Amino acid sequence: MRFWLSFLFVSISSAGVCAQEFRKTVTSLHGGRADWVLSPKETKTIAPDCPVSFSIRKEALSGGRQEGSELLILDNGKLQITLVPTRGLGILDVKLGEMRLGWDSPVKEVVHPKFMNLQARGGLGWLDGFNEWLVRCGLENNGQAGPDRFINNMGDEATMELTLHGKIANLPAQEVEIVVDPKPPHRITIRGIIHERMFFGPKLELRTELSTVPGSTSFQIKDVVTNRGAQPEEFQMLYHINFGKPLLEEGARFVAPVKRVTPFSDRAAKDVKNYDRFLGPTLGYIEQVYLFQPLANKEGGTTILLHNKAADKGTSLTYSLKELPYLTLWKNTAAEADGYVCGLEPGTNYPNHRKVERKFGRVPKLAGGASHTMSIEVQVHVSAEEVAQASRRIEAIQGRVQPVLDEARKE
Amino acid sequence: MRFWLSFLFVSISSAGVCAQEFRKTVTSLHGGRADWVLSPKETKTIAPDCPVSFSIRKEALSGGRQEGSELLILDNGKLQITLVPTRGLGILDVKLGEMRLGWDSPVKEVVHPKFMNLQARGGLGWLDGFNEWLVRCGLENNGQAGPDRFINNMGDEATMELTLHGKIANLPAQEVEIVVDPKPPHRITIRGIIHERMFFGPKLELRTELSTVPGSTSFQIKDVVTNRGAQPEEFQMLYHINFGKPLLEEGARFVAPVKRVTPFSDRAAKDVKNYDRFLGPTLGYIEQVYLFQPLANKEGGTTILLHNKAADKGTSLTYSLKELPYLTLWKNTAAEADGYVCGLEPGTNYPNHRKVERKFGRVPKLAGGASHTMSIEVQVHVSAEEVAQASRRIEAIQGRVQPVLDEARKE
Amino acid sequence: MRFWLSFLFVSISSAGVCAQEFRKTVTSLHGGRADWVLSPKETKTIAPDCPVSFSIRKEALSGGRQEGSELLILDNGKLQITLVPTRGLGILDVKLGEMRLGWDSPVKEVVHPKFMNLQARGGLGWLDGFNEWLVRCGLENNGQAGPDRFINNMGDEATMELTLHGKIANLPAQEVEIVVDPKPPHRITIRGIIHERMFFGPKLELRTELSTVPGSTSFQIKDVVTNRGAQPEEFQMLYHINFGKPLLEEGARFVAPVKRVTPFSDRAAKDVKNYDRFLGPTLGYIEQVYLFQPLANKEGGTTILLHNKAADKGTSLTYSLKELPYLTLWKNTAAEADGYVCGLEPGTNYPNHRKVERKFGRVPKLAGGASHTMSIEVQVHVSAEEVAQASRRIEAIQGRVQPVLDEARKE
Repeated sequence: MRFWLSFLFVSISSAGVCAQEFRKTVTSLHGGRADWVLSPKETKTIAPDCPVSFSIRKEALSGGRQEGSELLILDNGKLQITLVPTRGLGILDVKLGEMRLGWDSPVKEVVHPKFMNLQARGGLGWLDGFNEWLVRCGLENNGQAGPDRFINNMGDEATMELTLHGKIANLPAQEVEIVVDPKPPHRITIRGIIHERMFFGPKLELRTELSTVPGSTSFQIKDVVTNRGAQPEEFQMLYHINFGKPLLEEGARFVAPVKRVTPFSDRAAKDVKNYDRFLGPTLGYIEQVYLFQPLANKEGGTTILLHNKAADKGTSLTYSLKELPYLTLWKNTAAEADGYVCGLEPGTNYPNHRKVERKFGRVPKLAGGASHTMSIEVQVHVSAEEVAQASRRIEAIQGRVQPVLDEARKE
Repeated sequence: MRFWLSFLFVSISSAGVCAQEFRKTVTSLHGGRADWVLSPKETKTIAPDCPVSFSIRKEALSGGRQEGSELLILDNGKLQITLVPTRGLGILDVKLGEMRLGWDSPVKEVVHPKFMNLQARGGLGWLDGFNEWLVRCGLENNGQAGPDRFINNMGDEATMELTLHGKIANLPAQEVEIVVDPKPPHRITIRGIIHERMFFGPKLELRTELSTVPGSTSFQIKDVVTNRGAQPEEFQMLYHINFGKPLLEEGARFVAPVKRVTPFSDRAAKDVKNYDRFLGPTLGYIEQVYLFQPLANKEGGTTILLHNKAADKGTSLTYSLKELPYLTLWKNTAAEADGYVCGLEPGTNYPNHRKVERKFGRVPKLAGGASHTMSIEVQVHVSAEEVAQASRRIEAIQGRVQPVLDEARKE
Repeated sequence: MRFWLSFLFVSISSAGVCAQEFRKTVTSLHGGRADWVLSPKETKTIAPDCPVSFSIRKEALSGGRQEGSELLILDNGKLQITLVPTRGLGILDVKLGEMRLGWDSPVKEVVHPKFMNLQARGGLGWLDGFNEWLVRCGLENNGQAGPDRFINNMGDEATMELTLHGKIANLPAQEVEIVVDPKPPHRITIRGIIHERMFFGPKLELRTELSTVPGSTSFQIKDVVTNRGAQPEEFQMLYHINFGKPLLEEGARFVAPVKRVTPFSDRAAKDVKNYDRFLGPTLGYIEQVYLFQPLANKEGGTTILLHNKAADKGTSLTYSLKELPYLTLWKNTAAEADGYVCGLEPGTNYPNHRKVERKFGRVPKLAGGASHTMSIEVQVHVSAEEVAQASRRIEAIQGRVQPVLDEARKE
């Protein structure tokens, strides 16, 4: 296109005084092809009574390590939610006007798993593709890299190197399906299946579902992990939900109902009193991680919240401690070029190495054929009143419990 | 397609009472594209005198880790043989009516090598893609994973981690060609070349050929491994030929002319007397492996057979001990969800780690430019009489030799 | 195509006496698709005053491990320069009539990075794809494989295995652009960007540019490496520029202005006096590597040259020691089947392991946002006079300095 324009110009200008350079881009990050999966026109036919126009489009990316990656962009009329089927149906970002759930990672491409090597860099290869707003960590393991035991084909205990945060975020979805409810409020659902299955190893299946109602500022994630093997199998799941600007900023606040806060490093321990406050971009900042014992209401439900300094923008996550009992906060308010980001991380465990989690009884097991369901409701708050409402919900759960702040690091 | 149907329905029903949900699959394992390479119509032109209609089609797979994998499906009028050019021209399965040479691996996708990491899981990454009926193990090495010596660019001995069963099954074919003989019986041949070549390392080439006569229930595999380097080079080849149901079942039997049977583990040793009989699917079964010194006729030829309990269905492999002197049986009659399977494994060696095989003189070397040819005739038996014929052929080779059953494991 | 021909023949011959076999190639290394990016016809419109016709075409490769690789072939009217955007915009070869800058590696495919595992073979996986004339080694590291320290996410020193010659040659370009100057002499430029960026790791960017004037026998490479992170970061760059026949032959000569020549191994030390002379293909030859302290003119400029025995064909590289202070010569005159090749390697360092180079102060650091530029002018000499001119330029730089030849190996 750019070529034809310049070509035209050259043709014209060749009769004139000054020539135009020839310029043509043959490879580009911005050369993706977009196709409607569900066009705004179609939504009118499917849901003629729906006051909001919604749509889904698919984008095939090109250029560098994102060659072959696909995006699914769901616009519910308010929120634009971008899913990555090629990367385990993680969520790249969510936009609502100028508000954005997401962050600016130094990794700019939506890296196709074919370019990943999870074993690189002493098991930290996962960091080569890390730029999503929501990235699942699991299923065989998540957390720190390093050697752990497993049972090999001979039935013997053997050693393998676990890689940081496991494989699920770098496995492409096998089946992806869009469903729209014909009845009001016409809930839109995107479903997918990702298999982490091998011979002589875990046979874990993730069925994931994201759904939203046209015109709303919230959406639901519902994941079911099933052990498709015949024998009991450990699994781990941690939702690494990451925020940069505009929510994260100097004075931004993390609000959660907590019984106990435990720092993960000596550095984090020194600063435990400010665990819920964030710095602006800070050159040379080293990550500070806090482990929580969260509180819940009688049904097991809890809500956690991140809001900006002015407390007029925020995002809350509502879920059940029965499904996701452990909570971790990752503060990484480094310089913007290095990745200014914090992570809210509900999980079946803390992000310690699996052998540590196993020692403390925090690695669940699924019997052959058994499942574990995990749901998270995400609400985007765009006014002081909405933020205040979410805060009050959290205060109600906290009640009169005084959180204990550990002064020394612990696993 | 599914979309247009529902779209149509919605259009119609919108005038009526009850709406239909919108449902669209955007990614699926079942979304492959099939193309004729040789259509039944063309075979009539090529071989007008052939009483049987045969065909070859190519299928491009999609969904999950099989995105980009290709199949070649040869239908000789009786057998449907599915080859995987993308995975070293292994054979996914062979079908004859309800009979199937193949098995149900927990790995459901035909995994593209770009999603494989052979070094994962302490060198067991190969298991992430293992689901073929016939998978070649080699060429630089096969057998167990672990450290072995090699000569590096400086001419010095260095250490590398061998990975389970080597690389050849996860290398895409470079050249694939179909040839049909114009003369009766119009033998159909699929040829391919796979290179396992690198700088400062082995320069091994596999030329593989599968051929069959239209209307027959047998086919031939002929492989030539050539050292394309100038200096002598070790190589290993093992044919991992795997059966599940319907051939494998409780009471199924492995029949082979053998001089000596050696268990590979203590578990296998305890059960050595039943080495030739199989259990039904058994939860928690740990693999039992047996190493054989097979017997041959005067020309070096031998036949091995797997048949079902009723001895009215079976498959036999006929080949030369001059080409493939060692034979291994892999019994893995685990629960179906974990992979109910046995493997018949003729090879240039046993599946020990290469350094063990080298110690016992079972790692052949090829001079620069030299080749080693290996052929296997596969016959599918679909009646008691055919099974009995194959058994008699094996008995004739066994003659009066009493097999020695070792009571302790050995490498 | 081949198919239709044989099909036709069969149709005709079926009426005659002798049938023709059916033969069809379904996968092939030679099945690439070529497209004009800039056709000879277009160049006439862009540069109507240019006496030389030039062109650029793109080729999408298929077959084996080169499936998905792309080439850009720039024909400046004299030189055909083949770049590989898929492999970091390395240069596969350069042709001028019968002259060829390049070599015959045992690796025949232009291997797509998706089939590479740099960690294979104890960190030597890079050798699986090595066949370019010019391949960049870097950016985080180059040189030998092995463990080195790095700073992990916790701010702690940790250990990672560096892989041979780093990642940059196996990363696909993100942006590739062609520019033609509308003014005489109508310089043609191919620009690209390759990112070696990750979270919690280096954020290095390579902007590379190859340019040439239509009708000339020379071209320029200009590379800018930028640290896109906020904190200081080490980097390394070495240009591995490799020649086989026809330039490399028995009696071929390497000419460079040098202060000191240091052998890299005991083998190289024994033969240090002949460092600048080459053998013909030699079965079992083990590589000999020499490290140089090059000399430069007052501006820092230097020239190095490789010419054939008759000194009537050659290639010279002209660059600045301020940008690329270290020079290495790699002699690998092995048998042709094993790779008969030598490498001229200007770099920011010698190809020792990074920890050795760091010890000797030869690993440069870039402040956050800072850049390092490196340019090389490549001239192809096709007459005795041209070779002599280049030699004289080098002699002038050498002046009266007597090179010191170290007799023992050193790092």
